[in-house]
Amino acid sequence: MMAISVQNIADRFNAVVVGDPTRLIHAVAPFDQAGPRDLAFAVDASWIKQLKTAGAGAVMVPETLDISFLESMEATFIVCEHPKQFFFKMLSWFYPEKRPLSGCSSLAVTGQNFNCGKDPVISSHVFIGDDVTLGHRVWIMPGVFIGDGVCIGDDTVIKPNVTIMERSCIGKNVLIHSGTVIGSDGFGFTTDGQGHEKIVHAGFVQIDDNVEIGACNTIDRGTMGRTWVGQGVKTDNQVHIAHNVTIGPHTLLVAQTGIAGSSTLGRNVIIAGKAGVSGHLNVGDGAIVGPGAGVTRDVPPGEIVSGMPEMPHKNWLKVGRILPRLPEMRKLLLSLERKIKAIEKRIETE
Amino acid sequence: MMAISVQNIADRFNAVVVGDPTRLIHAVAPFDQAGPRDLAFAVDASWIKQLKTAGAGAVMVPETLDISFLESMEATFIVCEHPKQFFFKMLSWFYPEKRPLSGCSSLAVTGQNFNCGKDPVISSHVFIGDDVTLGHRVWIMPGVFIGDGVCIGDDTVIKPNVTIMERSCIGKNVLIHSGTVIGSDGFGFTTDGQGHEKIVHAGFVQIDDNVEIGACNTIDRGTMGRTWVGQGVKTDNQVHIAHNVTIGPHTLLVAQTGIAGSSTLGRNVIIAGKAGVSGHLNVGDGAIVGPGAGVTRDVPPGEIVSGMPEMPHKNWLKVGRILPRLPEMRKLLLSLERKIKAIEKRIETE
Amino acid sequence: MMAISVQNIADRFNAVVVGDPTRLIHAVAPFDQAGPRDLAFAVDASWIKQLKTAGAGAVMVPETLDISFLESMEATFIVCEHPKQFFFKMLSWFYPEKRPLSGCSSLAVTGQNFNCGKDPVISSHVFIGDDVTLGHRVWIMPGVFIGDGVCIGDDTVIKPNVTIMERSCIGKNVLIHSGTVIGSDGFGFTTDGQGHEKIVHAGFVQIDDNVEIGACNTIDRGTMGRTWVGQGVKTDNQVHIAHNVTIGPHTLLVAQTGIAGSSTLGRNVIIAGKAGVSGHLNVGDGAIVGPGAGVTRDVPPGEIVSGMPEMPHKNWLKVGRILPRLPEMRKLLLSLERKIKAIEKRIETE
Repeated sequence: MMAISVQNIADRFNAVVVGDPTRLIHAVAPFDQAGPRDLAFAVDASWIKQLKTAGAGAVMVPETLDISFLESMEATFIVCEHPKQFFFKMLSWFYPEKRPLSGCSSLAVTGQNFNCGKDPVISSHVFIGDDVTLGHRVWIMPGVFIGDGVCIGDDTVIKPNVTIMERSCIGKNVLIHSGTVIGSDGFGFTTDGQGHEKIVHAGFVQIDDNVEIGACNTIDRGTMGRTWVGQGVKTDNQVHIAHNVTIGPHTLLVAQTGIAGSSTLGRNVIIAGKAGVSGHLNVGDGAIVGPGAGVTRDVPPGEIVSGMPEMPHKNWLKVGRILPRLPEMRKLLLSLERKIKAIEKRIETE
Repeated sequence: MMAISVQNIADRFNAVVVGDPTRLIHAVAPFDQAGPRDLAFAVDASWIKQLKTAGAGAVMVPETLDISFLESMEATFIVCEHPKQFFFKMLSWFYPEKRPLSGCSSLAVTGQNFNCGKDPVISSHVFIGDDVTLGHRVWIMPGVFIGDGVCIGDDTVIKPNVTIMERSCIGKNVLIHSGTVIGSDGFGFTTDGQGHEKIVHAGFVQIDDNVEIGACNTIDRGTMGRTWVGQGVKTDNQVHIAHNVTIGPHTLLVAQTGIAGSSTLGRNVIIAGKAGVSGHLNVGDGAIVGPGAGVTRDVPPGEIVSGMPEMPHKNWLKVGRILPRLPEMRKLLLSLERKIKAIEKRIETE
Repeated sequence: MMAISVQNIADRFNAVVVGDPTRLIHAVAPFDQAGPRDLAFAVDASWIKQLKTAGAGAVMVPETLDISFLESMEATFIVCEHPKQFFFKMLSWFYPEKRPLSGCSSLAVTGQNFNCGKDPVISSHVFIGDDVTLGHRVWIMPGVFIGDGVCIGDDTVIKPNVTIMERSCIGKNVLIHSGTVIGSDGFGFTTDGQGHEKIVHAGFVQIDDNVEIGACNTIDRGTMGRTWVGQGVKTDNQVHIAHNVTIGPHTLLVAQTGIAGSSTLGRNVIIAGKAGVSGHLNVGDGAIVGPGAGVTRDVPPGEIVSGMPEMPHKNWLKVGRILPRLPEMRKLLLSLERKIKAIEKRIETE
């Protein structure tokens, strides 16, 4: 187990130590589970309140806290600009990635005209087709299939059992989790009276730099042209992206969302878990779609929508509170109808 | 890059050329992106209107258009019966499938009593169990598992990293996309007070001819008897089909749909994206289930249903428009209640 | 084909035979499809009513039936305590699991410091990382990836093309179906103005004894600490379990459900198909969440909730009946409004 002094951690982030700078930290832990050898962080008000009783070896806290307040306690603090971000950076120090030696397994298969950068890791049971180009330090884990004409940029990591079909184009520093399928055919057929005839899907998938794709995603190739996942996009598990969809930079797709064919999502969009976006729609920059929502119309930039069909989120919150009261509303409505009939009758007879 | 003359294309479809029949076509493109070397098609009114300014080398158009109208323009047209279908047939001419040489990789494993037709492609990292029968020209891509006693018909293609469990029976000319699991155990247990005991799933999966199964589907075997996917069925990605389900011929299951155990779908049904069908239900021939719908009752043939729980689609469209106005309806209802009380009071006191 | 006498079956379950104990049974079948060589069972009233015309070689029936009533019929019965459970036990007798010979394929790869119990089956195209521990009789099917430091208990079976990432801890007698990914990174980022920076996921997945995980599940590791699937839990296909979730013992997760980060489900919970549970929630012991429900608040023990957002199930049933009538309710409401205005006018003018 590695250990690092509190001062050493502080130095990495231009942070100030309050307490014992020589204390050694051996691990990281959540604030409420941390012991005397652990580093923790506190940004929420609820944890800040409990700082006095903190059991952590050191707690990363925001600069907005009063230093004299911290000095009044026995614990050791690392006062810094972004406690949470810095804490998670320390996580990668304590849990460094264990990269295998460079090379190509004798149980891997590579095709003709293979263009491979420096220091690749090509593990066992990997299949690489013809005319494939890999950048430097690409790491392909076991059981991965890479089709003909695929390009993969520097420092990209492909986790086990991923399938990347022909002509897909993957950027630099991309991470693709296990079980994911990139470049499958879109769901496109021409239908006559009898049945459905397959349309050849001649397009491809383009994934830009710094993207992370979750486990068991399916990203279909374009029918013609590309399905495009912009730089910095992050997808959770079991996300489906149909043919010719465009996902703008830094957009987040939470688990089990689905984006239907030819829709376009802007930059910094968030699609919450299990939501769906119908085909040929636009979701504007910075828009947010709530969990389980079903989007059937364009969403303007910056708007927050929820529900099925989608509506402004604030509206949906009210609707959600009223829905369980529908039975009682209906009763009231019918009783009012009876009362009005009675009133009308009485007025008539007067 | 291959090239083909306009006349040559027209001859394939018994079509008439208006314009320059010697013009060479090098690629296909959508109407609004096509350049002078590209073939495009126009069937929608909006594109027909723009024919004059079409940039495409040639445009496939329907026979319903007036020839003299086409002759008045400078572009070249291929006038044919089914422009869209014919166009997509040309796609496969420009993007022919690249099939590897027949044979069985030395990194594949085949079991006892292997019955293999003519000209198979069995790629590396494929595992084939005992008593497996493959038809002619079957193509098994890398990383595929095929369990004991599986049958696969002529010309079927299994994409990388597919799992086909024992005794599954796959027809001719079937295409199964990557990551899909055929023949996993159904979700069936007997429960006593303590826990859940596994039921042995003794059935199998039968997939008929000309079926296409999308990426990351899961199709469970029958508990006893079969789970049956009828001929010509097409499924999109991430579709779940439970044990003992029957899917009728030419039915379409869009992405992320789920069909629960023992339900039966008829012919030419469409289940839109993210919809679910509960167990032990019948969905009649030609019925359509809308996106995200939750089907809890039988759906008669030809009916269109949407919503959760499902209702007639036209009804759902109205409901969907009213839902966001529930808060205002509730306000109105409460104000009417107050008014009626006031009126009643006034009448009483009169 | 194996055959077994009715008496022999009865002896296994301390059951009483009514009819011919020497009759030979060759297979099992559903009650309404069973022929003279088949074993069936009848527990539902509808089948009990049809016992007279049963075509099965023998029918397993409950002890609650009157023996003289059974004796009056020509068929053969096995009268026992739990006909359904006993029947399914016979299924595994007729369809015994075919386990390959113990050993490790020459096309498998095992890492350093491999700790392997007795009689393992390690199939072809399996990758096992460093510091892995397998219990006795573990069966790893083809195409499986097992990362560094993984532990797997006795008698566990891993189906083809499963991915188990580093440091996952799997119990005894666990069954994991194909395409499933255990221990992928959670969906966690720190976001500054520019983009999203990856959080190192330093935690792990713990799966306790007697768990069955369906096909194409994704179970993320904890950010810190564990994601925990308790003993006896059963998950259906395409289930997503996010980082730091706890699933209590014997809980059932039906197909396509999703549990968001840090939520805790109690014992014997049932989450029906396609339902979702938001993050940081508690679902109490024995609670049931209906199909397609969206859980946004804690669910107390034993409660049954449905709908989106979730509400008491009985309430939801009423709401579901009223939803299609919303348009007619709205019409009535507006007509009442008009009538009240008319009444008010009339009263004013009196």
